[in-house]
Amino acid sequence: MSEVVERLRHVLPPEALVTDHDRMQSYRYDRAMFCPAGEPLAVVLARETAHVQAAVRVAAEYGVPIVPQGARSGLSGAANALDGCIVVSLEKMDKILRIEDVDRYVVTQPGVYNAVLSRAVAEHGLFYPPDPSSWEFCSIGGNLSTNSGGLCCVKYGVTTDYVLGLEVVLADGRVLRTGRKTVKGVAGYDLTKLLVGSEGTLGIITEATLALRPQTARPRTMAALFDSGVTAGEAIIEIIRSGVSLSLLEIMDRTTIAAVNDYKRMDLPTEAAAMLIAQSDAGGEAGAADIATVAKLCREHGAIECIEADDEAEGELLLEARRSALLALDELGTTMIDDVCVPRSRLADFIGATEKIATDLDITIGVLGHAGDGNMHPTVVFDAQDPEQARRAQVAFDKVMEVGLELGGTITGEHGVGVLKRDWLRQEIGPVAESVHRAIKAALDPKNLLNPGKVVT
Amino acid sequence: MSEVVERLRHVLPPEALVTDHDRMQSYRYDRAMFCPAGEPLAVVLARETAHVQAAVRVAAEYGVPIVPQGARSGLSGAANALDGCIVVSLEKMDKILRIEDVDRYVVTQPGVYNAVLSRAVAEHGLFYPPDPSSWEFCSIGGNLSTNSGGLCCVKYGVTTDYVLGLEVVLADGRVLRTGRKTVKGVAGYDLTKLLVGSEGTLGIITEATLALRPQTARPRTMAALFDSGVTAGEAIIEIIRSGVSLSLLEIMDRTTIAAVNDYKRMDLPTEAAAMLIAQSDAGGEAGAADIATVAKLCREHGAIECIEADDEAEGELLLEARRSALLALDELGTTMIDDVCVPRSRLADFIGATEKIATDLDITIGVLGHAGDGNMHPTVVFDAQDPEQARRAQVAFDKVMEVGLELGGTITGEHGVGVLKRDWLRQEIGPVAESVHRAIKAALDPKNLLNPGKVVT
Repeated sequence: MSEVVERLRHVLPPEALVTDHDRMQSYRYDRAMFCPAGEPLAVVLARETAHVQAAVRVAAEYGVPIVPQGARSGLSGAANALDGCIVVSLEKMDKILRIEDVDRYVVTQPGVYNAVLSRAVAEHGLFYPPDPSSWEFCSIGGNLSTNSGGLCCVKYGVTTDYVLGLEVVLADGRVLRTGRKTVKGVAGYDLTKLLVGSEGTLGIITEATLALRPQTARPRTMAALFDSGVTAGEAIIEIIRSGVSLSLLEIMDRTTIAAVNDYKRMDLPTEAAAMLIAQSDAGGEAGAADIATVAKLCREHGAIECIEADDEAEGELLLEARRSALLALDELGTTMIDDVCVPRSRLADFIGATEKIATDLDITIGVLGHAGDGNMHPTVVFDAQDPEQARRAQVAFDKVMEVGLELGGTITGEHGVGVLKRDWLRQEIGPVAESVHRAIKAALDPKNLLNPGKVVT
Repeated sequence: MSEVVERLRHVLPPEALVTDHDRMQSYRYDRAMFCPAGEPLAVVLARETAHVQAAVRVAAEYGVPIVPQGARSGLSGAANALDGCIVVSLEKMDKILRIEDVDRYVVTQPGVYNAVLSRAVAEHGLFYPPDPSSWEFCSIGGNLSTNSGGLCCVKYGVTTDYVLGLEVVLADGRVLRTGRKTVKGVAGYDLTKLLVGSEGTLGIITEATLALRPQTARPRTMAALFDSGVTAGEAIIEIIRSGVSLSLLEIMDRTTIAAVNDYKRMDLPTEAAAMLIAQSDAGGEAGAADIATVAKLCREHGAIECIEADDEAEGELLLEARRSALLALDELGTTMIDDVCVPRSRLADFIGATEKIATDLDITIGVLGHAGDGNMHPTVVFDAQDPEQARRAQVAFDKVMEVGLELGGTITGEHGVGVLKRDWLRQEIGPVAESVHRAIKAALDPKNLLNPGKVVT
């Protein structure tokens, strides 16, 4: 094995290689701490595409697995190390290379954090919509690899909708360029969108060209309180049925709100069972009309109170509360966050079923999510030191996915499969799709070196 | 060979099989009449997925190529028959299976025409945006296979952006289901978007679940006249730079306008060198403000006249004029329509270069296109009986693509590769991407039976 390290030392500059056991520990896990992770042989801190190529070529030569890694903010263990692997971290490839105003795209390295990129393009009057709650600590490379969503998906779509082209290191070390710099293009297979969301199993993304939009108008934000999660879910269905165009429509239940209040020292109302947060960025009268429509619909469908944010800062505070929900719940115990997306017409049913699972199993589940998309994140909170509780937590976690599938949904709306949901993936997509996954994996990575055992097994 | 036909007779009902030589002639070509097409052995008029499976299994058994076919409105020869092939036509699978109001999707068979689907969902207050100019005579299956664009892409994106899931018959006759019925989902590789735009080379689409949007507001439409195509291109760049959100931004030059006037007995102004058509569907004051902004920008950047449509009918007439442009040019001679998409900042350069090609080669090129996307359709018009003119036409057609690539564009924004642009595809994507295409093709169609020789060679 030290032969592999010797070889890496030979082809990489010293600052790009970590082999110290203690230092490597922090590269073992993403945020799926309860998923298994191995001990890497070496960590490559790539500074340029050539470093990634060099590492992949050594891995191919010695048949050693490669685990690509971004900011390790993933929630499904896709970036967790494997025993004897080479971790290829992209965190040092963190430069924004170009922002084009008229053509509205940005060329970026993968290590740039989502919020850093968003702010940089905002200075050009442009807008990069995908905004995971983790935007301050997740990288664009990870967003691409998991096809991240976020809060404003309900209006603007997810990461894949913004990817024009990629530079990717293939399993044999060659560099593939996919896509284009134009708005449209159909020259050949859509390799770009095949690679987005493939969680590092088909190639390692070393550069991306991302489409941007003009900046939106000043948003208007409101909250609505409900005395039942199911009622809130029914109100959401009515909001969607109305066709009103919102840039955000989120839900948090009482457990989540209380956790956020503690964590962020906030003073959100805890008397209600559930709170909706809605935002319109239509601007001017249109934005005001949107929010008025939502308030009316909420009142007609059981809201006990509707509060419009006084100004943009207050609106941002509500969003900040929502974004911090998972971190806040993390303070209460070990968390397992579900990521079920159901058809929006089934949202109330899903919330009801989730609450029933929590009651039946006598376990805490914080119900929160991107309600406008039907993408819910029921988060099981438990004491990992208590084996019986841990068992019930796992049962609850699985039952939530089961209900999601029963309601015509998917086991993962935006967090990905990683190691956490491999079995569930099989169940969702069935044997034909599974065999197509394997065929594509074998075509692009015949030696099964790229993040083996993640997504497909 | 008659053994194959015998076998097809055995596994298919009589109405699903055509073997009469004369009747088969109409199934040989799509609209790329100047591309080669072979003589099919049989045409299968599939009524259900099982018919497609049966045909594919016979093809696999005997090693006979399969050419999937929709409404044959394609422009690149992707649906042209091959000698000794089985054509599998999806035109009889023309039912809309389900429209869901709250979840906003439609489940449809592939043979449904785009306009039929659009009108059906409009009755539910919903909107299916992809709107190729050929919408009255192109099928959803073809739209999926080529990832069609259209007029409102500039605001709403292209076909792939609306595909939630597919049912696909694979090369071995198995049925693959991809995707989901939810807004978001990242369960496994994005097989859906890999299949969209693959022109029948990876599988045959037999059903699709398509996302819908709420219907838009009543549109406002305007036209602006310019005395030079390049000036019009510069105005477009300024319109885009302004960030104004238009639902349509098209261009037609004098040649095209004159052809449309003749073809549709219209009275569009022919004194100008180029006409822009802009539309906003923002509704109310916002829509009026958008159109006012565009008019102001056009006037500031060289427009000789700006005319707002009096009402929706007049606006629709302008769109109808634009949609009929290719059919109108077809009346003037044989046409070869380019489909270059350039970064929008290079639009004026591209128009100038196209005009120069026409002048240098002394050939007619009608310049038209989806200006707001940078997706232009310069259409070479020539007398196919005149070999010298036909030669110059081909040179012009190729030179337009060459310029497109030089300007950082793509050889096809929405029409696809088919047989027409295989060599150009290789040039655009390069050898690494080409080998990845081949690997994926071999993974999904190891015997090379599905539309062989189209897209990848």
